[in-house]
Amino acid sequence: MKKLSAITAGLVGQPMLKLLVEANDLEAAGRRILHFEVGDSDFDADPHVVDATITAIKAGCTKYVSSLGIPELRAAICEHIERVWGFRPEVEQVAVMPANSIIDFALRCLADPGDEVVFSDPGFPTYDAVANYLGLVKVRVPVREERGFRLDPGELRRAITGRTALAIINTPANPTGAVLTAEDAAGIARVAEEKDIYLLSDEIYYQNIYDGARHHSPAIYDRCRERTILLSGFSKGYSMSGWRLGYAVGPVAVIEKMGLLFNTVYTCLPPFIQRAGIAALATDASLVEARRSLYMHLRDFMVARLNTLPGVSCAMPQGAIYAFPNIKGTGMSSEEFSRFALHEAGVAAVPGSCFGPAGEGYVRFCYARREEIIEEACARLERALQARLG
Amino acid sequence: MKKLSAITAGLVGQPMLKLLVEANDLEAAGRRILHFEVGDSDFDADPHVVDATITAIKAGCTKYVSSLGIPELRAAICEHIERVWGFRPEVEQVAVMPANSIIDFALRCLADPGDEVVFSDPGFPTYDAVANYLGLVKVRVPVREERGFRLDPGELRRAITGRTALAIINTPANPTGAVLTAEDAAGIARVAEEKDIYLLSDEIYYQNIYDGARHHSPAIYDRCRERTILLSGFSKGYSMSGWRLGYAVGPVAVIEKMGLLFNTVYTCLPPFIQRAGIAALATDASLVEARRSLYMHLRDFMVARLNTLPGVSCAMPQGAIYAFPNIKGTGMSSEEFSRFALHEAGVAAVPGSCFGPAGEGYVRFCYARREEIIEEACARLERALQARLG
Repeated sequence: MKKLSAITAGLVGQPMLKLLVEANDLEAAGRRILHFEVGDSDFDADPHVVDATITAIKAGCTKYVSSLGIPELRAAICEHIERVWGFRPEVEQVAVMPANSIIDFALRCLADPGDEVVFSDPGFPTYDAVANYLGLVKVRVPVREERGFRLDPGELRRAITGRTALAIINTPANPTGAVLTAEDAAGIARVAEEKDIYLLSDEIYYQNIYDGARHHSPAIYDRCRERTILLSGFSKGYSMSGWRLGYAVGPVAVIEKMGLLFNTVYTCLPPFIQRAGIAALATDASLVEARRSLYMHLRDFMVARLNTLPGVSCAMPQGAIYAFPNIKGTGMSSEEFSRFALHEAGVAAVPGSCFGPAGEGYVRFCYARREEIIEEACARLERALQARLG
Repeated sequence: MKKLSAITAGLVGQPMLKLLVEANDLEAAGRRILHFEVGDSDFDADPHVVDATITAIKAGCTKYVSSLGIPELRAAICEHIERVWGFRPEVEQVAVMPANSIIDFALRCLADPGDEVVFSDPGFPTYDAVANYLGLVKVRVPVREERGFRLDPGELRRAITGRTALAIINTPANPTGAVLTAEDAAGIARVAEEKDIYLLSDEIYYQNIYDGARHHSPAIYDRCRERTILLSGFSKGYSMSGWRLGYAVGPVAVIEKMGLLFNTVYTCLPPFIQRAGIAALATDASLVEARRSLYMHLRDFMVARLNTLPGVSCAMPQGAIYAFPNIKGTGMSSEEFSRFALHEAGVAAVPGSCFGPAGEGYVRFCYARREEIIEEACARLERALQARLG
C-alpha cells in the first residue's frame, strides 16, 4: 500500500521558492543579484549574544533539556513580557520553540480539518501553508492600503462563523508593515471574546516599530490565560534568525499540549541556543534602540527612493522590516514586476500575490540591508523601468 | 467554537516523563539521584566538533539556509553513507533534520489516519507516541529475549496487511540493544519489497556496535531509492544530542515532501549546527573507535554487575547504549522495580513497559555513564534488593 499521504497534496512549493531558484540560477551563471526577498537582516546579532552562545557550548550546555525550555529562559521571558507587554504570565504559560513551529503547533492543537481559520490578506505565507496542509478552511480578510493595511475589527467579526476555531493576528504585519492601534487591538480582543474563539497573535516584529508609535497587543486583555496565544521571538528584533528561537505565551492547557507535541516530534531546543536567548533579553536598551533607529533610517531611505521610480508608489509602513510598494502604475502584475526586477535589474523581491490575492499589485522588499545596496537596487530598478516605460 | 483539536487527545505525557518528575522532586528535596534513565551520554562531544560550531557562529553562519540542509553537509552525508553503508545516494535523496522530526515527518508523509504502521515491541516510545497522535493503527511485533530481541522477518511478514503503510525497523535497537544480522536485514528488505510497503529504518545507533559485530542495514537493498527511508544522526555516535542534528536518506519524492513540511513548520536548522555535522563526519576513525571501546567497556562492566544482583539477569546487548535486564526474578513489575530503584536506591531507570507491553519484566539502564557511577548505582541496587528479597 505504498503511497504518499493525503497531507502531502497540500505541501507544495511556495511561488516565492521558485523565484529564489531563478535568482540562484542567475547567480550561478555569474550575474550579481541584490537580494531583497528574504525577511532576514543583513546585520549580525550583537556580540554579547554570540559570546553567550559560545560560552554555553564551551560550558557543555549540549545535552537534552525540557521540551518547554530551560527554566532560566522561561523565567526571563516572563520578566520580558511584563516589561514590554505590561503583564506577567506564569512560567507554565511559556513555551520556548521556533516561531514557525508555534504557528504549526497552535493550528494543530486548536483546529481540526474542516475548521475555519481567519487571517489577513495579504498575510505571512506560513499561515496559508500550514492551513493548506492541515486541511483547514482559510477565511481571508482583505486589508487595504487606504486603512494603512490594518485589520478592521468589524471585518474580522463578520468573517467569524460557528466553524471558526481561531483567528491569526499579526502586528506589526508582514508584508505590509501595518501596526495595530490601541483601539484596533482592543476591538480585536473584544471580538474574540464575544465570538469565543482563540487568537494566535503573531508579534514577532514587536521591536520593529517606528515614528514613536507604540506596540499594541490584543494579548494583554486576557493576559494569554483564556484564548490568546502570543507568538514572539528573537529573529527580528535581535537579528538572530539562524538561532531559530522563539516563544509562545498562552493558556496553560494549550501550552501543555504544544509542549507534548514538541517533545514528541523534536525533543527540545539546543540548550546553548536557549542561553543565547537569555543574553538577548538582557540586551541594553540603547542597543535595541540603535537597531530600531538604523532600520527606521533604512526604511525612510528606501521608501523615499521607491517613490521616485516610475509607476511605483510606496506608503510609509509603521513597522516590521518591509517596504510594500504599489506597482500598479507600471502596468505589470506583481509576479511580472518581480520577474522583470530580477531579470532586468538583478533585484530579487517577492510578488505581493505570494501573500494572498489582495497582495496583487504590490511587491515586498526587505529593507534590512546596507544603505548603499538599497541605493544600487533602486538605481538599477529606475534604469530598467525607464527603459521599459519610456 | 473554542476547543482543543482531536489530535491533542493522543498527546499524553509518557509514563517515563512522570518518573522523571518524581526523580526531580527527590533531587529538589536534597536526595542524590543517579541518572540512568535518559538515553544520552555523560561524555562530551569531541573538541573539534565544539570548535567547528564556535568557528561557524563567529563566521556569521547565522542566517536562514535551505530547509533540506546546507549543500556542504548534504554532500558530506552522501560520502559518509558510501563509506559506511556501501552505496552513494544522490544529494537530492538527503535531508538534514532532527532525528525525531524525521520519524514524525515520515509517518505524516507516508501514512493517513487509519493506516497501519508496524514496529517492534518493545521499541522506541516515539514510534508509539507519533502513531498515537496521528491516529495510525499500531501493529506491534513482539521481539523476544530468546532470539536476542531481534525482529524476525517471518513475523514481520505476518504482521503486514493491505492497510500497512510502513514498517519501522531499528538496528541497533532501543531499548534492547539488538543488532540485526545480515540475514535479518536482507529478509526484512525482501518482505518490504514483496508486500510493497515503505521501511523507515532507524539506524541512529549504527556506530554503537560491539564485539566485532557489523552493522547490517535493510536500506542497502534499494539504496533508499524506492521504499526505504534511512534515519541516522549525530546524537549517539558523536555525543551530540544537544545539537539536535540528524539526517534522512530516502526516495527523492518522499524527501521533497519532508523538506516542504520542514520548511513550513521550522524553516531550517541553524547553519552553525550543520557546520558541526560536517566536522563530526570528518572525525578521525581512531576517535570513533575510542568512543566505541569505552562504551563496550562500560557495557561489559554494567551487565556483569547487574548479573550479580538478586533476581536480576541481564543478557549481553550487541549494540546501542542500554542494558535491558530481566527483573522478573525480583517478583516486581517493571514499573514497581523502577519506582523501588528510585526511592530505595536513588537510581533512575526506565520501566520496560514504557517501550511496549512486551517490555514488561525488564528495565532499561543507559550505561553511557562513568564507571564509578555505574558501580555506585549497582552497589545501591544490590543493598536495596538484598534488604527487600532477604
